[in-house]
Formats: sequence, C-alpha cells, structure tokens
Amino acid sequence: MAADTKHRILESTSELFRRHGYAGTGLKQIVAAADAPFGSIYHHFPGGKQQLCEEVILSAGRMYFDLVHAIFAAAPDPVSGTRNAFLGAAAVLEATDYVDACPIETVALEVASSDDLLRRACAEVFEEWIVGAGAIFREAGVPEAEARVLAISLINALEGAFVLARTLRSPEPLEAAAATMTNAVTAALPGA
Amino acid sequence: MAADTKHRILESTSELFRRHGYAGTGLKQIVAAADAPFGSIYHHFPGGKQQLCEEVILSAGRMYFDLVHAIFAAAPDPVSGTRNAFLGAAAVLEATDYVDACPIETVALEVASSDDLLRRACAEVFEEWIVGAGAIFREAGVPEAEARVLAISLINALEGAFVLARTLRSPEPLEAAAATMTNAVTAALPGA
Repeated sequence: MAADTKHRILESTSELFRRHGYAGTGLKQIVAAADAPFGSIYHHFPGGKQQLCEEVILSAGRMYFDLVHAIFAAAPDPVSGTRNAFLGAAAVLEATDYVDACPIETVALEVASSDDLLRRACAEVFEEWIVGAGAIFREAGVPEAEARVLAISLINALEGAFVLARTLRSPEPLEAAAATMTNAVTAALPGA
Repeated sequence: MAADTKHRILESTSELFRRHGYAGTGLKQIVAAADAPFGSIYHHFPGGKQQLCEEVILSAGRMYFDLVHAIFAAAPDPVSGTRNAFLGAAAVLEATDYVDACPIETVALEVASSDDLLRRACAEVFEEWIVGAGAIFREAGVPEAEARVLAISLINALEGAFVLARTLRSPEPLEAAAATMTNAVTAALPGA
C-alpha cells in the first residue's frame, strides 16, 4: 500500500510537471491528483517538493529513454529508428492534445539557473541519453566522436521540436526533425 | 518617465523569466528589479501579469529574431551564418553563466498546455522566426518547401541545444548543433 501511494505520487507529479511545470505545480494539487493524504508526501519524500521532483526527473527520464531505445531496437536500422522516434513522438503529442512530450524538459529549463540539485538530476538524465544514443550509432559503425555529436544532435532536435510542436500545436516541427535527422544519420553511417 | 518605467518593467520581467520562468516570477520581484512602484504594473499593463507576459514574449521574441538575423546578414553565406549563430549563442551562454539563451523558451513550455493566450503569443513569435529563417534559405536558392523544413530544423536545433547546454553547463550541445546544421544547410544549397 505504501509503495502504491509513493508510485501514485510520482506518477501524478510527473503528469502535473508535464502540464504545468515545477513552479506551477503545488503539493496540494499533487496529493489531490494522487488521491493520497497530504502527510504521505513528507512520509515518502522527507525532503519535500525538491526531493520528490528529483525522483520524478530520474525515474521519468529513465522511462523515457527506455521508450526511445525500444523504438530503435525494433527498427531494422538506425535511419528507420530515427524516423520512427520522431514520427512516434508526433503521434503521441497529437493523441494527447500536445501535452505528452519530454517529461523533464519544462522542469530542466525552470531549474537550470535556480536549483542546482535539480539541474544536476536533469544533467544526469541527459548525459545517460547521450551515451545511450551514441552507443546505438557506434554499434552501427559510426566513429565514436561523430556518434556523440549525432546523439546530441538527435536529442537537440527532439527537445527543440517538442517546444515548437507544443507551442504551434502542430506535428510539423517533429516531421522536419525526422527529415533533417534521418539525413544526418544516413550521411554518418559507413558507406554513405 | 512613464515610458521609461514601462521599458524597465519589460526588461526586468524578461530577465526574470529567463532565470526563473513564468510561474516562478512574482510581481513583487518584477517591481523590485525594475525599481518601479507596485501600482505601475497595473497602470501600464491593466491585464496584470498575463498581459505583461504577452508583451514580453512578443518584444523579446522579436529582438531575439533581429539578433539572429543580423548574424546571418553579416555572414558571407548561410553556412557561415548557421555556424556563427550557434557558436555565438554558445559564447553568450558561457559569458552569462548559462542564463542568457532563448528569451521565450521556458515560458513557452510552461504555458503550452495551460494558458492559450500566452501560447498563441509564443506561436506568433516562432512562426515569425520560421518565416524569417526560411526567407534566408530561399534567397540562397533553396526551394520553398525544403527551406521551411530547414528553417524549422534550425530553430529546433537551437531551442533543443539551449535546453541541453543550460542543463549540462556546457557549450557542447551548441557545437554539435553547429556541426549538424551546417551540414544540413550545405546539402540543401544548390550545387551541393
């Protein structure tokens, strides 16, 4: 039961952060959304909102990486994986009324210059994504330094396209990212 | 004097939004930073914080476009302009302790699913950027549809690299974006 409550709090907080950001989400909203007593927050997260946010960043960041990694693993090659990742993200965004994008992006920008503990949690997540995406390209034969540049550019394109797609309420930025990044991946693969 | 006060309020709000976001910035902080009486906010912005934010988005968004446009205008070709835009943004970020990036990005994500008036202001700015950047590529001979994809990808890359660079406190994401986007622009130009 206690584990269930903690899980519900983490899930509800992640959902509220996607929609309203860190500063725009209050503890009262979180317990209401999680259907949990107010005291359960401090029971499970003695450090309060900051500790809760840190756990949400790390767990949501890892879940999101697993999701994108599964798309690449299911694709026949990294070019198709890249296309599927962007077009899949576009489909999810459209299906969720342009809410469900990167789970940590809004918080990352809010805390970048104001909360170093949370900034470091976001940095840990992004660095894991860079290393993970870089490994996919290296395994396909891209030299190490170039694979890292490509991995960072892939994440740049995804995070930037989310900002534009959510704002414009259009899949077009993710479709543009798919076109530009499949070209970049194609050019980087051996034999291009 | 009244125009000065209004200008100071807009400038201070823009600076606070870059650092703390929309929800994280209070009217008391704004008047303190602008050295203005509290009532001056409602005198100049009868719609309060939302109206003030809308004017900040539109004015800061246009100033930022003018800045990037000037970098392209000063460059001998769009490939150099692209490189200079990303490396210039990296230099400004490093010089400002990773605060001074896109002036509307944090707010755009905060309001995307929660304040449609402010979302539309951000959308107006991004659409102006897309049209403006597309014109640069069209003038260099890139066909219209491809120029729009390239313009969106350039802005995707810039916005995404800002998220990563501010979080990682590193210029590397902007350098990776410079490499990938100069390749994309080179490949799109006639005669590539």
